[in-house]
Amino acid sequence: MRDSDGGSPNNRNYHNSPNLLSNPLTRGGQGRRRTVTPMGDRLGRMRIVSLAGGIGGARFLRGLRAAAPDADITVIVNTGDDITLFGLRVCPDLDTVMYTLGGGINEEQGWGREKETHVVKEELAAYGVEPQWFGLGDRDFATHIVRSQMLAAGYPLSQVTEALCTRWQPGVRLLPMSDDRCETHVVITEEPGGGVEADTDGSKADVRVQGSTEPTNKRRRRAIHFQEWWVRLRASVPAESFALIGIDTARPAPGVLEAIAEADVVLLPPSNPVVSIGTILQVPGIRDALLAKTVVGVSPIIGGAPVRGMADACLTAIGVETSAQAVLELYGADLLDGWLVAPEDAGVALEGVRVAARPLLMHDVDAAAAIARAALDLALDLAR
Amino acid sequence: MRDSDGGSPNNRNYHNSPNLLSNPLTRGGQGRRRTVTPMGDRLGRMRIVSLAGGIGGARFLRGLRAAAPDADITVIVNTGDDITLFGLRVCPDLDTVMYTLGGGINEEQGWGREKETHVVKEELAAYGVEPQWFGLGDRDFATHIVRSQMLAAGYPLSQVTEALCTRWQPGVRLLPMSDDRCETHVVITEEPGGGVEADTDGSKADVRVQGSTEPTNKRRRRAIHFQEWWVRLRASVPAESFALIGIDTARPAPGVLEAIAEADVVLLPPSNPVVSIGTILQVPGIRDALLAKTVVGVSPIIGGAPVRGMADACLTAIGVETSAQAVLELYGADLLDGWLVAPEDAGVALEGVRVAARPLLMHDVDAAAAIARAALDLALDLAR
Repeated sequence: MRDSDGGSPNNRNYHNSPNLLSNPLTRGGQGRRRTVTPMGDRLGRMRIVSLAGGIGGARFLRGLRAAAPDADITVIVNTGDDITLFGLRVCPDLDTVMYTLGGGINEEQGWGREKETHVVKEELAAYGVEPQWFGLGDRDFATHIVRSQMLAAGYPLSQVTEALCTRWQPGVRLLPMSDDRCETHVVITEEPGGGVEADTDGSKADVRVQGSTEPTNKRRRRAIHFQEWWVRLRASVPAESFALIGIDTARPAPGVLEAIAEADVVLLPPSNPVVSIGTILQVPGIRDALLAKTVVGVSPIIGGAPVRGMADACLTAIGVETSAQAVLELYGADLLDGWLVAPEDAGVALEGVRVAARPLLMHDVDAAAAIARAALDLALDLAR
Repeated sequence: MRDSDGGSPNNRNYHNSPNLLSNPLTRGGQGRRRTVTPMGDRLGRMRIVSLAGGIGGARFLRGLRAAAPDADITVIVNTGDDITLFGLRVCPDLDTVMYTLGGGINEEQGWGREKETHVVKEELAAYGVEPQWFGLGDRDFATHIVRSQMLAAGYPLSQVTEALCTRWQPGVRLLPMSDDRCETHVVITEEPGGGVEADTDGSKADVRVQGSTEPTNKRRRRAIHFQEWWVRLRASVPAESFALIGIDTARPAPGVLEAIAEADVVLLPPSNPVVSIGTILQVPGIRDALLAKTVVGVSPIIGGAPVRGMADACLTAIGVETSAQAVLELYGADLLDGWLVAPEDAGVALEGVRVAARPLLMHDVDAAAAIARAALDLALDLAR
């Protein structure tokens, strides 16, 4: 437990509020600008900012924390995947990072809580309440109940996240990309018959797109929430485009631009470059702030395939090839200073970006730490 | 499953909505006045209205349903115990009646769900969220989540209750006494030191009254929610009075006055005469409507002690003795036509009220059915 005295400007106390529902506004640590000392704060700690999506980001961060245990790490997390289910606000990426770094993650599936039960979900199904395709466990429900209660009481998501982290002690500072609601929707075309084909539980099933009550005789373009496309349809229906509802007026959450400004280096983990990192970069002000920094990215694509997940479906939707080279170009040389790829992608190149190659599979925490260390070393070398 | 055609004015379809969140407003069965046919509707069914609190009311109603399987039973349930916990709306009495009649009750404790688990509650405690003294199980949480979602969507409690009953099929029509929020608070005096003594888990513990953060040197009068007094303090601190916040402007829920007007008889089960039946009777318009009807009550007091629960603490608070005679006088001869008591209380009397005596312990459904049958017979005899 760190000292809770907020008197020193270098003493950050983001995660030690004694009472979850006490007023976070009265706590220290927020909104103070400090004199920037190159390569570390006054205590000599390196300041790292990382963007993050869900599973890939969370595992990379667990490695980063192990690789740089004394660093001051701020993580800006995608909230475009957030969704309101059963009246409760669910933040999948924030929770995946929080549970992973806090030791409560279901290691096997990479999201949700370990030793999870599903009584509430079964009961909701017994009431006939939709949707039933999103897997919420009982332990996870408690997080959403607390979050929703605090949001309803007027706390912004950034303060709610801080409060939840008093329990999880992730060892990094977690910030939502924005306190403003901003949700990714996916434009798809519904085939005649009103259904879309999806491979559910190994068998082809006719999955009716939510909200469609009548079969239709013509193809119909519709926008559905990202989670419905990702979880329910398993990205099996081609995405024609993504619509980030609310992104134009979204503001970076308090502390986001400050953390970037004070960062010694910025790392982009191997998260989804379109719907995770790409979404964060579209929050007005964030990409611009990053342009001034030393930024190193870790490729989420190895030898033409996503390390994990369905990033290829997202890249295809925006007309980008699924390759380490294409994602490098997508991010661009204005944003990236360094690009860490797998050995099989060692040939990628973009003027103004230094490329380094090493194995990128995060088998375990040690492997993730080695990858994070390599990304950090590249960044520190570039920042020198 | 009853016919869902709402065309016939005598065809009530309160509990067969196919989709919980479909618009209850479009369903049949609400708000139509029918010609009153003495002793039954056009189908010859007897029409019974019963008021009800929690456990005692629920068990009596299960007996009544068995005793009069062909009757049309409408139950007006106390909502003064309702409370918002963790941002979710909890209606203890409605749920106890619904679970009991729907076959989902925990028989041993009389409230809550059978085969219950408590994962969500443990997680909320791990987050440090208060209160932790109210026992909510995972199955029960699902009910509150659905209810809260529908309330937030704008449905009144009466329609929410109807929707929840599509699952439970209680075999009676459940109506909250009011759709307006109306909560019972208890005035207590806090002793010097800021705490009140409560017997928790068998040992004396200093229980700080919620909201009191500083010890105080003087006695202080405070109002706390009924549930805090009842569940947390176990009614161990004397109640000085009850304050029914919102009762003055509360309106009977849709259907309440209509059901009373059309009732052949009205029964008061052995529920708490102060904070259950007494609360319902204080909703403006309900008591007046009952005065025109044949009303038979079942005494909740046997030989000077409550059949169950802590009704004595409530009676004492309003200056009424804990006896079948005193509760008879509390209800009064203007309201009651008949009063069913236990053999040991056979001597009670009040001018204008016919008293009958029989064993009143509801050991099981058969015993409850025999008691309900006796109350019903008395009422039918009086109504003749």
